[in-house]
Amino acid sequence: MQKPIEQTALYRIVNPRHIAMFGASNRFAAMGTNLLSSILALGFEGDIYPIHPEEDQVLKLSAYKSVLDLPVTPDLAFIVLPTAVVPEILEDCGKKGIKQAIIVSGGFKEVGGNGIALEKQICDIAARYGMRFVGPNCIGAVNPHHKFNATYFPYNQAAGFIGMASQSGSFITQMFDYLSGFGLGYSTGISVGNEANIDIVDCLEYLGACPHTRVISLYIETIRRGREFIDMARSIVPYKPIVAYYVGGSEGGKKATFSHTGALSGPDKLYDGVFRQSGVIRANSIEEMFDFCLCLGLCPKPAGNRVLIQTHSGGPGAVAADVCSREGLILNPITTQTLEKLKQYVPHTGSTGNPIDITYSKNSMDYYESIPKVLIEDEASDAMLIYFLMPGHSVRRALEGFGITGEKATSQAGAFIDDQSKTVADLIKGFSKPFIGFSFYTRENRFIRNLQDNGVAVLPSPVRAARALAAMVRYTDYRKKILAGC
Amino acid sequence: MQKPIEQTALYRIVNPRHIAMFGASNRFAAMGTNLLSSILALGFEGDIYPIHPEEDQVLKLSAYKSVLDLPVTPDLAFIVLPTAVVPEILEDCGKKGIKQAIIVSGGFKEVGGNGIALEKQICDIAARYGMRFVGPNCIGAVNPHHKFNATYFPYNQAAGFIGMASQSGSFITQMFDYLSGFGLGYSTGISVGNEANIDIVDCLEYLGACPHTRVISLYIETIRRGREFIDMARSIVPYKPIVAYYVGGSEGGKKATFSHTGALSGPDKLYDGVFRQSGVIRANSIEEMFDFCLCLGLCPKPAGNRVLIQTHSGGPGAVAADVCSREGLILNPITTQTLEKLKQYVPHTGSTGNPIDITYSKNSMDYYESIPKVLIEDEASDAMLIYFLMPGHSVRRALEGFGITGEKATSQAGAFIDDQSKTVADLIKGFSKPFIGFSFYTRENRFIRNLQDNGVAVLPSPVRAARALAAMVRYTDYRKKILAGC
Repeated sequence: MQKPIEQTALYRIVNPRHIAMFGASNRFAAMGTNLLSSILALGFEGDIYPIHPEEDQVLKLSAYKSVLDLPVTPDLAFIVLPTAVVPEILEDCGKKGIKQAIIVSGGFKEVGGNGIALEKQICDIAARYGMRFVGPNCIGAVNPHHKFNATYFPYNQAAGFIGMASQSGSFITQMFDYLSGFGLGYSTGISVGNEANIDIVDCLEYLGACPHTRVISLYIETIRRGREFIDMARSIVPYKPIVAYYVGGSEGGKKATFSHTGALSGPDKLYDGVFRQSGVIRANSIEEMFDFCLCLGLCPKPAGNRVLIQTHSGGPGAVAADVCSREGLILNPITTQTLEKLKQYVPHTGSTGNPIDITYSKNSMDYYESIPKVLIEDEASDAMLIYFLMPGHSVRRALEGFGITGEKATSQAGAFIDDQSKTVADLIKGFSKPFIGFSFYTRENRFIRNLQDNGVAVLPSPVRAARALAAMVRYTDYRKKILAGC
Repeated sequence: MQKPIEQTALYRIVNPRHIAMFGASNRFAAMGTNLLSSILALGFEGDIYPIHPEEDQVLKLSAYKSVLDLPVTPDLAFIVLPTAVVPEILEDCGKKGIKQAIIVSGGFKEVGGNGIALEKQICDIAARYGMRFVGPNCIGAVNPHHKFNATYFPYNQAAGFIGMASQSGSFITQMFDYLSGFGLGYSTGISVGNEANIDIVDCLEYLGACPHTRVISLYIETIRRGREFIDMARSIVPYKPIVAYYVGGSEGGKKATFSHTGALSGPDKLYDGVFRQSGVIRANSIEEMFDFCLCLGLCPKPAGNRVLIQTHSGGPGAVAADVCSREGLILNPITTQTLEKLKQYVPHTGSTGNPIDITYSKNSMDYYESIPKVLIEDEASDAMLIYFLMPGHSVRRALEGFGITGEKATSQAGAFIDDQSKTVADLIKGFSKPFIGFSFYTRENRFIRNLQDNGVAVLPSPVRAARALAAMVRYTDYRKKILAGC
């Protein structure tokens, strides 16, 4: 049922070789200029042809008076022009044989009145020429694997594995920095705008086929093609998880989304049903959506819902246990075999219940290597949560114990932290169960940054880690059901 | 009903003038040494008398063989010694006339067996000498206003306004860095340990009376004196909010907290009832607890539950509206008077519904000064949420429009951001309604950092801001009810 990616409507939109750029000029303040700057800044390797009625050059690129003058037929028309001229320009693009467009310009259906007629006009033109387009009233798209960032924000991190389609442009672009705070990035992000031609379902089709996309995220205010959404999602979920954040289920949300995108949102229960039937995991916030993506993209999938928690701090362990339990996860005691192997590492103050609370390890390698190695093999659990805490000062103080102080202590502490995080990362590569770290520290902490950069899933609190694990278990369930034809 | 702070049991424990320090040595690895290092590092201004059987000096302080040899009677005995010797040492302290102690040592009731008898023994000694103590099995206390940090972690931020009592030491110390990520700090933090003598209720009494504490936070696995807790909380809530995070309401949480602190936790519903009767706001995570503290500590309290949302990005605005609505907040349309004043600032693409979505302002001062000034006065709302977004790149790009580039642009962008944040902070000082910012950026972003450093409440997502506002409204309701005697 899955199409080859080259045959999906979005393929040449987010992987263009040649772009006709409308609306960029040498005026820095113009939105089109800003978008062209973004495209150039990420080092796009294809050809860009600015179309400008007066300028010979735009941002040092040779400009053309009309798209009809171009020496080639570009893959993509990128249109950031006043509303009124968009139909005419799109018509020219059609004549030139361009088959794909992104229309950033607003002032269409979302403003009502004449905008509705204008939107119908561009749809008709596209139909006449067999064109597919994203927008209007969107903020563009980003495909860092193709060095293509056609959005207003600079994309500064590495290309990632999260494919996103969003009915809010903000949740594509304004999340670049947020994601980089977890060492994450997009595989492809698409702001769908008014969805006059390409919609969320088309995005699912592309992201399902995209080899760089390990997990799909959706920001949804309304689903315009319900049946197709369900069918498309069900065809993808067996091999790729989909996470959605839906807004509009409350009175305030309903009004706000209508005013934002003209969305006719439905009650929560309806969308719960649609998502359940589709096998789509529902998140309760943007942050939670990306938490789920992080774990689903980095970890092996759990076979079931039994979790083991390792900690050396009682409070964070208790919180993790409490939330796991609320989320329907099971905390089994460890098996007697595991207990036998574990004993040597747990001091008399510790607890071998679940959570396993080590309280204190003489040798920190025990906590980060020997113990998880024993626990992950426990047959009474399908997944593991582990509390990560290694503040620089405690390592430096330990070194002081050996008479190592000052700058030398700082540098040795750094080397020690690097080494420990490498050990954890290497260790979990061999695991076939999910292993999710939690901490109140983030990437500003060297240990956490190293772990994340080495592919370890770490979330910034026990609550978030436990909920993400529960989402992974939901994915396992959904997948099984769909494969069984339920 | 409120005692003068000097008469509370905790007063000299967290405001000691002279400390007898047991368990510190010149061995860096020892826990006691680490704790003494922390006390010294924060620049404690009182006298510290290390008691050590062999050393003449401990960390360059003159040491004494016995507490009985001291030239003065210290306010506080700080005990980090092996379990078995604690009773004898406490007895000596009693003889010396010391009336306060913190007992960090573990191995008491929490380990069962002989530990139970040992705990009874220290309680009896304390009773005999009229001593009050925190612990055993705790990690100490911090009172940065007194330059007193008797915990394992360095306290690096400014003294703050959050008073915390916690049944997990981790949630005192391991949150120092977390709080500083919001520009926050503790007024006083107390790890209550086994609560053999001083418990959460005593902490409430102290924190209620503490002039530096604007809001009280509690991490709770069990409440040992239910009636007293309710009475004490009700006596405080009329003038100071209390926020609690309770863990133990689920099966997994119950088991984990029992193994952690021996807590006999009760079902969620029971604790919901206790908190409601006490006027204590319940949070669903540590992060949420501190979100609530941040807003309650920084903002005027809302008179009611009607909220106005200002944004220039549709998605974040819709999310805020959706969550507000789910949390029982009301989004009224603005009054016609407000609409009249607002019109000039809203372009045709914008929306004057609620959320007010400006979409785009020619002059960014409109968004951060003129518009909130108009909106905050709207009589149809009691509070305001505003979306904050000012990434450095967009300011630099705007400057490029004026031909300002390179280093000059970076420096001018910085100055512009400083200026804008100062304007916002100055503006809201005049408001008597809560004004809460939300953003996906944190303190690493200069604009957000400046706002927070100038006392503006900013939370890192629309969901968190909306929930914090709802918590403030709950506080208003609780306060009214208690004052009315309900």
